[in-house]
Formats: sequence, structure tokens, C-alpha cells
Amino acid sequence: MKEIDEHSHKHARPVEQMDVEPSEAIVSMVDSWDNMGFNAKRLARACKIYEAMIRDSDCVKYFALSGAMVPAGMQKIMYDFIDLGFVDVLVTTGANLTHDLAEALGDHHLQGFISDNTKSDADLHDESMNRIYDVFMPNNIYENMEDWLKSLKLDIKQSVKEMLWALGDELPEDSRSILKICAKKRIPIYCPAITDSGLGMQLSFIHTGTNLNHFEDLQECINLAWDSKSPGVFIVGGGVPKNFIFQAMQFSPNSAKYVVQVTTDVQVSAGGLSSASLSEAISWGKVNAAGETSQVHLDATIALPIILAYLKQKLK
Amino acid sequence: MKEIDEHSHKHARPVEQMDVEPSEAIVSMVDSWDNMGFNAKRLARACKIYEAMIRDSDCVKYFALSGAMVPAGMQKIMYDFIDLGFVDVLVTTGANLTHDLAEALGDHHLQGFISDNTKSDADLHDESMNRIYDVFMPNNIYENMEDWLKSLKLDIKQSVKEMLWALGDELPEDSRSILKICAKKRIPIYCPAITDSGLGMQLSFIHTGTNLNHFEDLQECINLAWDSKSPGVFIVGGGVPKNFIFQAMQFSPNSAKYVVQVTTDVQVSAGGLSSASLSEAISWGKVNAAGETSQVHLDATIALPIILAYLKQKLK
Amino acid sequence: MKEIDEHSHKHARPVEQMDVEPSEAIVSMVDSWDNMGFNAKRLARACKIYEAMIRDSDCVKYFALSGAMVPAGMQKIMYDFIDLGFVDVLVTTGANLTHDLAEALGDHHLQGFISDNTKSDADLHDESMNRIYDVFMPNNIYENMEDWLKSLKLDIKQSVKEMLWALGDELPEDSRSILKICAKKRIPIYCPAITDSGLGMQLSFIHTGTNLNHFEDLQECINLAWDSKSPGVFIVGGGVPKNFIFQAMQFSPNSAKYVVQVTTDVQVSAGGLSSASLSEAISWGKVNAAGETSQVHLDATIALPIILAYLKQKLK
Amino acid sequence: MKEIDEHSHKHARPVEQMDVEPSEAIVSMVDSWDNMGFNAKRLARACKIYEAMIRDSDCVKYFALSGAMVPAGMQKIMYDFIDLGFVDVLVTTGANLTHDLAEALGDHHLQGFISDNTKSDADLHDESMNRIYDVFMPNNIYENMEDWLKSLKLDIKQSVKEMLWALGDELPEDSRSILKICAKKRIPIYCPAITDSGLGMQLSFIHTGTNLNHFEDLQECINLAWDSKSPGVFIVGGGVPKNFIFQAMQFSPNSAKYVVQVTTDVQVSAGGLSSASLSEAISWGKVNAAGETSQVHLDATIALPIILAYLKQKLK
Repeated sequence: MKEIDEHSHKHARPVEQMDVEPSEAIVSMVDSWDNMGFNAKRLARACKIYEAMIRDSDCVKYFALSGAMVPAGMQKIMYDFIDLGFVDVLVTTGANLTHDLAEALGDHHLQGFISDNTKSDADLHDESMNRIYDVFMPNNIYENMEDWLKSLKLDIKQSVKEMLWALGDELPEDSRSILKICAKKRIPIYCPAITDSGLGMQLSFIHTGTNLNHFEDLQECINLAWDSKSPGVFIVGGGVPKNFIFQAMQFSPNSAKYVVQVTTDVQVSAGGLSSASLSEAISWGKVNAAGETSQVHLDATIALPIILAYLKQKLK
Repeated sequence: MKEIDEHSHKHARPVEQMDVEPSEAIVSMVDSWDNMGFNAKRLARACKIYEAMIRDSDCVKYFALSGAMVPAGMQKIMYDFIDLGFVDVLVTTGANLTHDLAEALGDHHLQGFISDNTKSDADLHDESMNRIYDVFMPNNIYENMEDWLKSLKLDIKQSVKEMLWALGDELPEDSRSILKICAKKRIPIYCPAITDSGLGMQLSFIHTGTNLNHFEDLQECINLAWDSKSPGVFIVGGGVPKNFIFQAMQFSPNSAKYVVQVTTDVQVSAGGLSSASLSEAISWGKVNAAGETSQVHLDATIALPIILAYLKQKLK
Repeated sequence: MKEIDEHSHKHARPVEQMDVEPSEAIVSMVDSWDNMGFNAKRLARACKIYEAMIRDSDCVKYFALSGAMVPAGMQKIMYDFIDLGFVDVLVTTGANLTHDLAEALGDHHLQGFISDNTKSDADLHDESMNRIYDVFMPNNIYENMEDWLKSLKLDIKQSVKEMLWALGDELPEDSRSILKICAKKRIPIYCPAITDSGLGMQLSFIHTGTNLNHFEDLQECINLAWDSKSPGVFIVGGGVPKNFIFQAMQFSPNSAKYVVQVTTDVQVSAGGLSSASLSEAISWGKVNAAGETSQVHLDATIALPIILAYLKQKLK
Repeated sequence: MKEIDEHSHKHARPVEQMDVEPSEAIVSMVDSWDNMGFNAKRLARACKIYEAMIRDSDCVKYFALSGAMVPAGMQKIMYDFIDLGFVDVLVTTGANLTHDLAEALGDHHLQGFISDNTKSDADLHDESMNRIYDVFMPNNIYENMEDWLKSLKLDIKQSVKEMLWALGDELPEDSRSILKICAKKRIPIYCPAITDSGLGMQLSFIHTGTNLNHFEDLQECINLAWDSKSPGVFIVGGGVPKNFIFQAMQFSPNSAKYVVQVTTDVQVSAGGLSSASLSEAISWGKVNAAGETSQVHLDATIALPIILAYLKQKLK
């Protein structure tokens, strides 16, 4: 509430992309949580299941990333997960890639304030500030992105994954962006709904005739699952990234053997997939009945740093 | 809880697709709710805003449909919304279209039971029953769909919309399916994440080389927004359909003038788009600050029949 | 959002207490919902379970009422439930009784607007407007209540129930208030946390030495359960009213045979009682494993009118 | 899910009551979160606001504790908050005190499993295991409590607070229970709904004629607020403890100057008090418009250890 007075719209401070160190203190907190109940226990299990995925040499690690993670300061954390080899396949939203690109090009998201007030949001609009709950994205981010995309020669008929790698290749070497590290390590990165994003719209405006082959990505993702003896899935949020991986799991010889989902969507009785229990996925053959699973009802901005600090410490 | 004993997995009764009649009783209940508070008032406002959208001859009516609506019995209701001219543009998920196609081909979803229990979901898997909360989808639905898709000659390089119209054209004349009525009336139907669905997977398996032009749909949807003097948006759930329409609204001369969202996703503080307040969209220029809006936190299986009964009565 | 412009704080229209008629249209909608899934089915089951409770002559009907129901317009509906004999024991919150008393004394709650904004809530405070989400309660309601309470001679050492009956006895004959009809019909009405309410505070200020016997109510409620062959429980919301009845059910020969809960609290993984599944209560011996239960995730301002219209029609 | 196979009902391991150390790693994680968004930022603000409350010598620190905190392993953490002087007034539920007493008497809660399954909960009932989500409470806990309460001579006409202090006085010196430390330090502890709990029921069964003076506690709590220049409120969960403190804040010269709420209840549109925004409380005069507030949507089993580790480190 207070921050409404503290910040003027125009002088909001940037969101700082968080860095996470290995931590023995976090490990012992997680170990305590593992002997308790409720979401503390579920978070502890999430840490231990992810550790098991990494220690299992047969495990292909799928990572589903939805939600506005980069605007909230999770870019470097995602970079580390990928850079450290904790991610073999990434499925994400066009929104996260748009925000990732913005930060990679030197722009910033801002620490704003919440509001549920027409007037206040109309003021933000007049100031070209796009609000994501309590984070602002200045609209000129799009202009810089447009200039950069215009400057590139791109094959506009390749698969979405190849396009994303191509964009990553063009980013500065030292960038700690998701696109960059996926391109560098040639980690398959799928974005089934890229046309549902600022990045997708800009590609279609700037490079007339853009027609990325979405079905090539689909085939590829299913083939990867087909070859995975012991797949593991780590899900942030839900939506398309969760289902795109789960549908592929139906084609994996053993279906998912490890599954963690970190989500704040707890409404199960309306039948939505994002909130569906991991047990439900067993009926579909997406998750193995003998698998290790944990669904944690927790904001990922809190869960991911804890999980990363735990993994960095245990896998030193 | 009780139903767990009542139904054996194998003999579950089919979900009946609900029919809705005009109702004066519903209209007067809605009129009472409009003078109260909380979600009762929001539901009343939703009814009246949709009525205003239909009465406004300049309004282009966008409808976003996510969630497992057809499995829960909403197919005929969606058919009526479209058939009665309450929908000018439909954006939906591959899942809803997969379920719609199954019912259109004579298959049925079943009234099942909930469970959060590995054993019980493993039993369902052994019986080839896919669970969607308390609804079951027998796995053989996919076999019938496969046979039907194999029997069709399809242009595998057109836009997603054109492919969906082509499928609708092949369905029986008397079918009360979403695909059929959209095809019949040539209502633009967009499905940005079709590769994230059973229908998308089957197309890619059966018709090798399928490469639908997703960017053509994007361009088209934006052009439609561009030409809409007075756009209105009705959203069921959230996810890709909500954002795909909202991103187009940024290119409409006035942005959205009417907006209703029916959703059970109430967690706003994690920054997700599905639950974001409609006020937040004003900052983005997606919604007009002078617009009429109502966000209703309600299961759509209850909201849609009430809204349709209201509209049928008022617009007789 | 719009209403923020429409209403000035000072000239908000009163919330109208809703009247509900029997309705064949509602009955047929409920019958359709009973063959579907998700919360539509749960709401249908809730209607049919309540009907069964009323038709079962051995059933003692417990009603738990929490939430700000009277401010939102549910006062006459609650009056009807009690007047029609659908309630044998009522457990509620001090807040609902405070609001009930205000309306009974001729004051009104107002149709306000939502806000999540320090400034706007500070303005309301300056205007002596207390906000309950989108409903306002003018602060002078307390002054009228104080004058009335001062005018009464009250036994300040009796049980809470007896005090509430005494207050009801003093209200105008034609009042459609919860307190009035409970007093008239001598329906046991328990309010375990009355000191947590405006009514409780006023009693303690005005009638020095007030010391209501809470344990007498507890004993009485348990004895009633002890004598109930076939108890049924209908819960609006959760909190103290839900648990106060459930703890008594443990002392009933068969525990609860019928249970319906209408709540919007869906977060189960933090272990809260309000959201706990009805199945969980079986482990405690509060609910009978062979009982009929339905937990509906729905705003009570929508559920209660539908359930009452259904019951009035079926039990004509 | 897996745990359903792992544990037999009978051989569940006890929940371990968590110990928390000061931690520089937690402090730096919290400092990073303070420059981000969403609930990470809110949690950081919660830590800093609580620190400010402790550093402000004029601040009277009210602590509202609801939810099943002791069963989930939060007993020692609550003990530390009180023992370290971070709590001046405690308001809690009878349930937490019942569980606190059980652990203080040497009994334990058990690490169980979730289930939404009549059969499985019926089995638990046969084994006298009461389920609280994924925690079990063996029913014999009540027997030991009964024996202990029978052995005590108690004044059954005093206030609830005095009764709770009397119980605390009887507990072993070395016990790390909430009741013990409140009694030892004579911290006012209020439990407005004690008759809504196992402890309340046992008192009424064992000590016939028990009639605790609830209104004395109410008066006392309001007088404490009256004398508080600079009150601060820390809320875990919501319900009666939240409102009992907030209603007293209306009588404090400045109303609450610091407020933190940690809750998983995010449904605001049904008007419930537990989930109500802290801004709403400004309209009531419960919270000061110039106050520092943070509402964190997070499971308290994760939030409390982090906040305590932060405070222990900063206030060394």
C-alpha cells in the first residue's frame, strides 16, 4: 500500500535480476521442512526430487516456464539453471522470451505498485507504463526491440526453436539471458504459442511472410520424449508449457518418472489443467504411478531461489 | 465423495451436453443481483455488458474460450452463443477443439469422480480412462478421431483457421459442435497453440509435413481489431485465448470498450495474466479506461448457462 | 472498474436485500447440472442433498453461516431458510449479526466499489464509510445500534444464545431479520466468537459487566448433536461456524449423514479447516463415510438464491 | 502422491518441530527479494516491517496466529518469537492451543499423506487417526490431555487469558510450548473462540460449570490498544485472530502503524475478512493510511522460518 506514495510512476527503480549463491543454511532449512507438513514439506520434496533428477544419468530434464518470471527478477536464476546443466529441454511462453530479450538488450523492468483502480491505470497508460501486478514495463522497450529485430537477417521459414536459437546467437556473448544460454548450449527451446506475444507480433510486423514451422517443434519434442528412458519434468506455473511437455510424456517409454510443479493456481474443481493434481496426470499416462512427484503451492519468485541455492550447495 | 462408491470406472454415465432455454426467472434473479455486491453483482454486470455488446451495432464481439468446457457439458451452449450471433471472433484452445470433435464424432465424456490418489488414478490408466477432475475421457476417443482424420483430404499448409473451417465442413450437418457452427457461419476461429493438443498431435502424425501458418492467423486477428470501432471481449478462463485477443486490442482504435472475464483464477499477486485485473489491461492500452468491465470469479459451468438464459430472454 | 466513476462515495445506492421465488426454470437448470461435471454438478448435488435433509424426518439440520452475507444482500434469503423450517440450529459470526441488526433497525449497507489503493480507502475513512470489498457500511450504523442497545434491559449473565433471542424479541414484529426469526421460532442460534464483532463490543461498552456464558452454548450444541439420529450440515463459508458444528458431530451417534459446504476457499495444501475437504472430516468422525456430501466452490451470493429457489419449488 | 505408498497409516514418522538459526544467507536473499516484485518483494517487506516494529520502542506488537501451525511443526518457532520479545500480545485459536498442549505433554503429530478419498479417510478413522491435510493427529492425544486436565485444580470462572496462563504454569519448565512461554512472560494471550476447540470441549466436560469470562478479555485487549501509541500487527492466516486485533485497533490513538499478513487466502471478491486487502482496513480506521503494510500470499510454514532467521540475524 505504502509504495503507492513512495514511488512516482516515472521514477520507479529497476527490478534487479537476482543472483543466488550456494547456501548451507538453505540446505538445512530444506532438510527441516522435509520432516514437517503442508507446502514446506512439498518444497523440500521439490528440492530433493530435482536433485535426484540431476543425479540420475538417464534422466532427461524438461523444464516448463510460464508466468512473468523475468519481469519479477528471475532471469539470472533461469540462466543458472540452464548453464549448470539442470535443463535439457525448455518450454516457455512468448511473454517470458519478450521480457528476456528486453533485459538482454539493456532495458529494464521497474519496481512499481499494485492498483485496482481505473484512474491509476489510465495514468500509467498516459505515461506509457505497462503494469504486470506491481512491476512496470516501459513501452519504449518495444521500440528498442523493434530496432534490433530490424537489424537482423533471419530465416523466416524455420522452426520456432531454430528462430529462437538464431536470436540467441545475435545477443551479446556476456548476456545472462535465457535465449543466449539456450542458443550457446543448443538446448532445445520450444514456444508453442509464440504468436501470442510481443516477440511474435514484432516478428510478423518486421519480417513480412514470417511462417515458423510449429509442427516441426512438436514432432521434435515428441521424439525426444520417445527416447527418454527416465524423464523428469520441472514445471513453473502451468498453461501451455505444462501441457506441451505432458502430452509428449505420453509417448515416453516410462512416462514422467520425476515431476515437480511450482504453482499458485490451487483451484482444481473447475477442471483446469494448470492446477490439476499430478495424480490426475497418471490416468493419462503422462506421469508414472511409481514416480516421485511434488506439487508446491508457492510463488515461484520465492521457490526458485530456494531450490537453486539448495542445488548449488548439494551439487558443488 | 459419495460418487466414488456409486460409479464403477467402467459404467460411468455420459456427461450430458446442456441445453439452455430463455428464462424470465433468470432475468429477474440477475436484476436482483445487480443491486447487491460481490460476485453476484459482477455476474449481473457481465450479463448486462454482454447484452450491451450485442445491442451495439458497432461492436465486434471477441470470445476467448479456455478451460475444459466441452468435457463438462458446455458444447451446445457454445454452439448457441455462436449460432445466435453473439460471437464474431472465437479464440480457443486445442483441447476444447479436441473434445468438441470427439463429441461431434459421436463419442462421449463420462461423469466420473475426483481422486487425489495414485492407486485410483493408476486404475483409471489401466482402464484407459483419462481423468479431467471429475470427468473421464475414454482413450478410444482418439482412435475414432484418428480414423476420421485419416479419411480426409486436407491442405496441410493453410492457416490454422482455414484448417479448422475445413474440419468443420466435414462434420455432419446436424452436429451441434463448435467447429461445425464456426465453419458454417465462417466465424474466424483462432487456436494459437493448436500444437499443444490431441488434435494438433494427430494432424502431425497422420498428415506428414503438416505446417499450418500460425502467423497468418495472427495478422488476420490484428487486422480485425484494427477495423473494430467498438470491440467487446468476453473471456472464459484465461491463458492464451485471453492474451491473444488482448494483444490485438492494443491495435484497435479504441481498445476494448466492453470486457467480461469469467474465471476461477483469483491469485493476482504472482503476476499471472489469467488472473490479472481488467484494470491492469488499461495500462497496456488493451482495455479502454472508459470501458464497461466485469471480472466474475465463478466456475464457467455455472456462469455460462445463466448468461445464455438471460441473453435468450432479453433478446427474444 | 466503471463503478468507480459512476458512484460518488456519498451517494451510493443501498444494497437491496434479495427476495427469491420458487422457480421451475431453476429446477430444470439444476437437473441439467446434475448430469455434468465440475462445480455445476456440485451445486446440483448441494440442492438435492439439502432437499433430502428436509425430506428426512429424522434429520436435524445444522446451518453454519460465515462471511459478510447480510451486507451483500442475503438477509431475507436467510430469513426464508429459517422461516420455512430448513434450519434447526444456526451457528454464525458476530459480524453477520451486527449487520443483521443494522438492517433490522432500518439502516442500510451501500453499493460501493472495490479499490486496492491507500488514497481511496483513506477518503472513505474521512467520509466514515467502512468498506467490505465493494459494499460500504456507513459508520453511523453503530450510533443507531448503540442507542437501541442502550434502551434495552438485558440479562448480561445468560448464555449467548439467550442474549441473541432476547435481542430478537425486541425487534419489530415485521422485521425480516435473522435474529428476529430465530427468536420467534426459538431456533437455537450460537455465536461462539461474539466478542469478535461490533455487536459484542457494544454490549461490553453499554452494559458493563456483561459476561455471557459461552460454555453453556457449547454444552447445549453438543447435547443436540448427541440426540441427532441423522444430522445434516449446511455450511456457508468456513471458519468458526463450520468447526463448531463439526466438533459437535463427533458426539452424534452417526456423525453427519448429509454435508454441503459452499465456499470460495480452495487452498487446501496449507492445512486450513475452512478449505479442508469434506472427506478429511471423515477421519475425525465428524462426517459419516456413507454420508452424502458436496463441497461447492462458489460465491454464496450466487449459490444461496439458486438453492433456495430450487427448494421452494420442489417443496411447494 | 508417492507418500501414499511409502507410509503405512500406523507407522508414520512424527512431525519434527523446526528450529531456526540466524542466517546471513537468508538476510541477503531477503535483501535481493526487496528489489524484485510479486510475493518475493512482499515477503522481504514483511521481514523489514517486523524488524522496524521491534526497533520502534513505542511499538506494541500484536501477533495473530490462526491455521494449523503446531501440527505442521511451527511450535518452537512460535516459542522463539515470543521468547525473544517479538510478541507483546498474542491472539490465537483454540485449535493451535490444543495442538500446542498435546506436544507439550509429550505427544506428537505425524507425517501422513493427503487423500481426497472416502475409503482412505474411513481407514484413518478406523485407526483413530485424525487428518489435517498431510498431517495426522492420533486420537489418543485427547486421552492424555484429559488425564492432565483432570489432575489440575482450576478457577473455572476467570477470564480465558487467565485460564490459559494457569494451564501454562502447570506445564514442565523446559517445555518449548506457546502456552508455557506466554505464561512465563505473562504475555497476554487471547482466544476469543476457545469453545470452538478440543481444549474448550475438554474443559467443559471435565470441569463442570466452566464459565470463562470472554468479555473481560475483550475489554482488556481494547484497553491495551487504547494505550498503544504505535501499534504493529503481524497476522498469520486470518479469521477471528485477525479481526479481534483489528477491531481493537479502531480504538488505538493512531490505529495500526505497521501491518503484515501472511496468508494463502487470496479470494477477495466474496468479501471475506481473512483475505481482505490491508488497504480495506484503512477505511475502517483499523490501519493508518500512512502505515507500513505488506500482505504476503504464502504458506506460513515457509514464511515464518524465513522471517525468524532474518530477524535473529539482524537483531543479534
